[in-house]
Amino acid sequence: MKKVKVGIAGLGRLGKLHAGNLAFHIANAELTAACSIMPAELEYAKNELGVTDVYTDFDEMLAKADIDAVAIVTTSGMHCAQIAAALDAGKHVFCEKPLGVDLEQCRQAEKAVERHPELAFFLGFMRRFDPSYAYAMEKVKAGVIGKPYMVKATGIDPEALVQGAIRFAPTSGGIFIDMAIHDIDLMRWFLGEDPVEVYAAGATFKHPEFKDANDDETGVAMYKCASGAIGFVHVGRTAPHGYHVETEVVGTEGTLRISPVPEKNLCVIYDKNGAVKECVSGFPERFAEAYLKEMEEFINCVQEGRKPEVTVYDGTKSTQIAFATTEAYREGKPLKIEY
Amino acid sequence: MKKVKVGIAGLGRLGKLHAGNLAFHIANAELTAACSIMPAELEYAKNELGVTDVYTDFDEMLAKADIDAVAIVTTSGMHCAQIAAALDAGKHVFCEKPLGVDLEQCRQAEKAVERHPELAFFLGFMRRFDPSYAYAMEKVKAGVIGKPYMVKATGIDPEALVQGAIRFAPTSGGIFIDMAIHDIDLMRWFLGEDPVEVYAAGATFKHPEFKDANDDETGVAMYKCASGAIGFVHVGRTAPHGYHVETEVVGTEGTLRISPVPEKNLCVIYDKNGAVKECVSGFPERFAEAYLKEMEEFINCVQEGRKPEVTVYDGTKSTQIAFATTEAYREGKPLKIEY
Amino acid sequence: MKKVKVGIAGLGRLGKLHAGNLAFHIANAELTAACSIMPAELEYAKNELGVTDVYTDFDEMLAKADIDAVAIVTTSGMHCAQIAAALDAGKHVFCEKPLGVDLEQCRQAEKAVERHPELAFFLGFMRRFDPSYAYAMEKVKAGVIGKPYMVKATGIDPEALVQGAIRFAPTSGGIFIDMAIHDIDLMRWFLGEDPVEVYAAGATFKHPEFKDANDDETGVAMYKCASGAIGFVHVGRTAPHGYHVETEVVGTEGTLRISPVPEKNLCVIYDKNGAVKECVSGFPERFAEAYLKEMEEFINCVQEGRKPEVTVYDGTKSTQIAFATTEAYREGKPLKIEY
Amino acid sequence: MKKVKVGIAGLGRLGKLHAGNLAFHIANAELTAACSIMPAELEYAKNELGVTDVYTDFDEMLAKADIDAVAIVTTSGMHCAQIAAALDAGKHVFCEKPLGVDLEQCRQAEKAVERHPELAFFLGFMRRFDPSYAYAMEKVKAGVIGKPYMVKATGIDPEALVQGAIRFAPTSGGIFIDMAIHDIDLMRWFLGEDPVEVYAAGATFKHPEFKDANDDETGVAMYKCASGAIGFVHVGRTAPHGYHVETEVVGTEGTLRISPVPEKNLCVIYDKNGAVKECVSGFPERFAEAYLKEMEEFINCVQEGRKPEVTVYDGTKSTQIAFATTEAYREGKPLKIEY
Repeated sequence: MKKVKVGIAGLGRLGKLHAGNLAFHIANAELTAACSIMPAELEYAKNELGVTDVYTDFDEMLAKADIDAVAIVTTSGMHCAQIAAALDAGKHVFCEKPLGVDLEQCRQAEKAVERHPELAFFLGFMRRFDPSYAYAMEKVKAGVIGKPYMVKATGIDPEALVQGAIRFAPTSGGIFIDMAIHDIDLMRWFLGEDPVEVYAAGATFKHPEFKDANDDETGVAMYKCASGAIGFVHVGRTAPHGYHVETEVVGTEGTLRISPVPEKNLCVIYDKNGAVKECVSGFPERFAEAYLKEMEEFINCVQEGRKPEVTVYDGTKSTQIAFATTEAYREGKPLKIEY
Repeated sequence: MKKVKVGIAGLGRLGKLHAGNLAFHIANAELTAACSIMPAELEYAKNELGVTDVYTDFDEMLAKADIDAVAIVTTSGMHCAQIAAALDAGKHVFCEKPLGVDLEQCRQAEKAVERHPELAFFLGFMRRFDPSYAYAMEKVKAGVIGKPYMVKATGIDPEALVQGAIRFAPTSGGIFIDMAIHDIDLMRWFLGEDPVEVYAAGATFKHPEFKDANDDETGVAMYKCASGAIGFVHVGRTAPHGYHVETEVVGTEGTLRISPVPEKNLCVIYDKNGAVKECVSGFPERFAEAYLKEMEEFINCVQEGRKPEVTVYDGTKSTQIAFATTEAYREGKPLKIEY
Repeated sequence: MKKVKVGIAGLGRLGKLHAGNLAFHIANAELTAACSIMPAELEYAKNELGVTDVYTDFDEMLAKADIDAVAIVTTSGMHCAQIAAALDAGKHVFCEKPLGVDLEQCRQAEKAVERHPELAFFLGFMRRFDPSYAYAMEKVKAGVIGKPYMVKATGIDPEALVQGAIRFAPTSGGIFIDMAIHDIDLMRWFLGEDPVEVYAAGATFKHPEFKDANDDETGVAMYKCASGAIGFVHVGRTAPHGYHVETEVVGTEGTLRISPVPEKNLCVIYDKNGAVKECVSGFPERFAEAYLKEMEEFINCVQEGRKPEVTVYDGTKSTQIAFATTEAYREGKPLKIEY
Repeated sequence: MKKVKVGIAGLGRLGKLHAGNLAFHIANAELTAACSIMPAELEYAKNELGVTDVYTDFDEMLAKADIDAVAIVTTSGMHCAQIAAALDAGKHVFCEKPLGVDLEQCRQAEKAVERHPELAFFLGFMRRFDPSYAYAMEKVKAGVIGKPYMVKATGIDPEALVQGAIRFAPTSGGIFIDMAIHDIDLMRWFLGEDPVEVYAAGATFKHPEFKDANDDETGVAMYKCASGAIGFVHVGRTAPHGYHVETEVVGTEGTLRISPVPEKNLCVIYDKNGAVKECVSGFPERFAEAYLKEMEEFINCVQEGRKPEVTVYDGTKSTQIAFATTEAYREGKPLKIEY
């Protein structure tokens, strides 16, 4: 079968990760073009990825490059416009989360996707492709835990990386938009339902810089669904042990807990501290396999003319919920969410 | 040193447990009297505990029995009146939680305790005496996790016992008063602070009988403190694996998690299901040691003229918070808590 | 029922532990006499245990003290003679392991026990009374793991206590006699069979002082039984994480593993090291409950005229196997064991 | 850089796994030829792998195919002859374990490797490439556990696959040659030393068919090294919970334990059985990443002119130790191993 030719837009940390997967680890894909406004990133494309067809302008890449698809890993504010441009240029689209930075943008992306039912649109909620999360969903679908009615989700970045988060805080949109969107997607996915009310709070006890940026180092939110199902999300940036992503799905017949210990590997070290499980250092380590699998799935969808499971509407809804959470957090009172 | 002579009031399941500890496992205590309105319980006292001085009337026991102290394990509605009567009769008092069933009762108990500074008053928040919880508090005090700023507490009764909970539902006061009070106490203890706002929800997906009783099988509540510290409590009645009490204390330098697996013992069974940790069956198994240790501490306080660490005010506050939680849950909106 | 009056012989670390249990935690026992050649230990008996009837001579205690039973916690070389003297004086006997320091002594103890079928003789293999080990045996008896055919047992003292072990090495009889006897007992207990051949080795890589004492800091032994069942024992003295006692029972339908992590309690600490389980510091912490339960069982056996499950022959056999292991280790070749 | 063209010999279960990695997951490799005596396997090559240049004769593939390297995944008895033929034909060689089925064959392979220092020879001890094992070795090299002096290695195939093992038993060479060779390699790797004596035993309590084939369903061996270091290997075929590969490396300053629970993924299921970790189903699942990483390393060695870390001599030694273990097991007595 013909390989899917992909052009990548954005070669930051995550862009490099996706590009490396496309170039070296996915047999039925070929990375044939790259676009970035950073000259160093285009050098990287040439020297490390072997991609010689490089662009500084996204539209030019769409117009000239020999590509079937684009992978959009640019800054969040550009996602929706690029999605629309790429689809209108007849390219299949993989886009990193979040879909957009406001609801209006998301609606534009929705319309572009609706205009092109012949093209695949894939939104990068990679956690769904992590083997442990995927397995948990299999169990849920098989009825192992009965009816899932509560999701408790935790996502905490490592303290080791907090300085970057502090620098980014003033422009991040706040902790719920920056961090909770994955947890919100998991909550929606496992519950099979959207929340209709949110109540939220934040706390900063270690790095006052977050407060200075009108943000918090820790955020928590509680969600109510129409059925009575409940969500609880806890996000933060100061885990001393590493990158802590943990999700609990409570059902009528059992509970599934994914990675209560975010273990680095299968080693246990017995030393003067006790019995120690070292933990993963960050999302690239924790979700390496998930990033590969989601891109494989995107390529396969393109080749096989299949529609990805995650839709553009999932992107809009998660964004909307993250915005509502931020508003509830800032106002300090519960907020209804209407779709 | 002279043994402390104790009269017990109430010999239900928990009363028998306390009575057994007093009679057989605490060297400096002596169980010399028992009071119950149930003839079978008094037979039990005679035959199993060797207590021949038995009463059907609490005040009569206070007046006639050769006792230094009373252990009150009666129904919750009688606690405060019996506390006052016992203290006024010059007896030291151990009382099971909750302190009372409304705030007015609690205030009466407070006044009785204040009238008798010479007597020990001990409220049975036994979880504080569990070796794992006590160790966690030692760690917190030693600064191991820095400043604790979030407590996530879970307490779920086993599905195996749900029929009892269903029968008890109409008169239990609701899941937050019936079950969350221990978790509320732990939250206050670990945070060193009282919440000023609560938001709550409930869910019933397995046993509609709880809804019939204007209650829920699962309850969750989120608390905000004045300092910004946060609490989250999840209580329920349908854990298929056993009795699940788990608490997480998040601090600026680390996190402590107590019993994420409510393991029955140190065995792992590798069988066709995988690697299995069996779980504890209920509170008598999980907190057997805690019940013994709290009673030992009560007896030691009496002998040594010390004041117990848990005060009557802790009882009032936990009760008040549980009531506020219930109200927030029923009204479906956040509620300020004023002390 | 009349309390069992007990005299204790030996008030070293383990003696104090047993005495404390008898004096304060076992309702149907009474510690009425104590014997020690160390004046400080007799002072301890008076001041801490409230025992005023003290002796420096074991036979004098047997002759004069008001006791139904003795607890022998003296040095190993005196066990068998004291067992015989106590039984001949009509006293029930609890004796710490090992039964004796050579087989001839053990045979003398066996004869004394046989002379007094009316008296209870209890040998302190306390691990059998540990709730986790007892539960594992229940599972084995219930057939959960089918036919048990291999036991892998590990017992390693903490590095923190190694200096004591070094001082004791020249007179300890070697690591297999000093340490492996509990593991040997567990192997026999779980397999329901005695080994007929042993092969052993030792290693010293940290503390050469053990080699100087003709001993090793680590010892391993492999056992074959007539049925084909297999045992493997690993003992040592240099665990940096604490006191590591772990046992695996492999059966045709499953495997039971007892305490692969010798956890101190149910806390997990997430800190810069990762997810950490702190470990127990030594046998008094690990087996506190087992020591209490075995003594309760001894007292109950005396009161109820029951025979303890562990017999004097278990003591002889474990001793014989430990000696055979030591010989196999010293000769560097397999040795047949005949009973 | 030019892709490495590889021809694969043998397309059984493991051959398919390697071929799939070469064809689809390793960017700098190209699977250009395949050889098998099974027509169905050649059909698989054409249809599933897209390899049209297929052979039924290994030498013909060497002579005619456009290949830089061969991957030998044929039956063990053919490995050494094919290694020599391929090297003599100027091809780099990847060969599955074991190196050969007798020492003489291994020596022939050694000579072939020595004749061609310009070519890469890679022996498939894939466990060394498993992230957890590789990490453990990093820790050992970093001195985290001090001097490693004991390795306890366990490798048990799942009961679910036992019928295949029973059918294969008469020709497998016995459990130590069939199964222990990976554990022996790990022991040598972690200790940095070869054993000089072995003592072994076997047991069959579930499937007497193994006894009929002069084999056992469980085998254990104890090894002594000249330095005093010790090895213990336990292999079997009847794990009810899945595929159990576990290794413990004991050092003077700490212990590393790799996969005491051979967990399938990061999910914990709390259900009526307790807290359950499901386990991996077999080596393809457990070592999927290791198989990929070892082949990547082989291809990289070829491209970069590097020598693989595992040498042909490692293959000979592990084979020799497995044979010595088998002999010790059959004779029931310790055996010296001379190299």
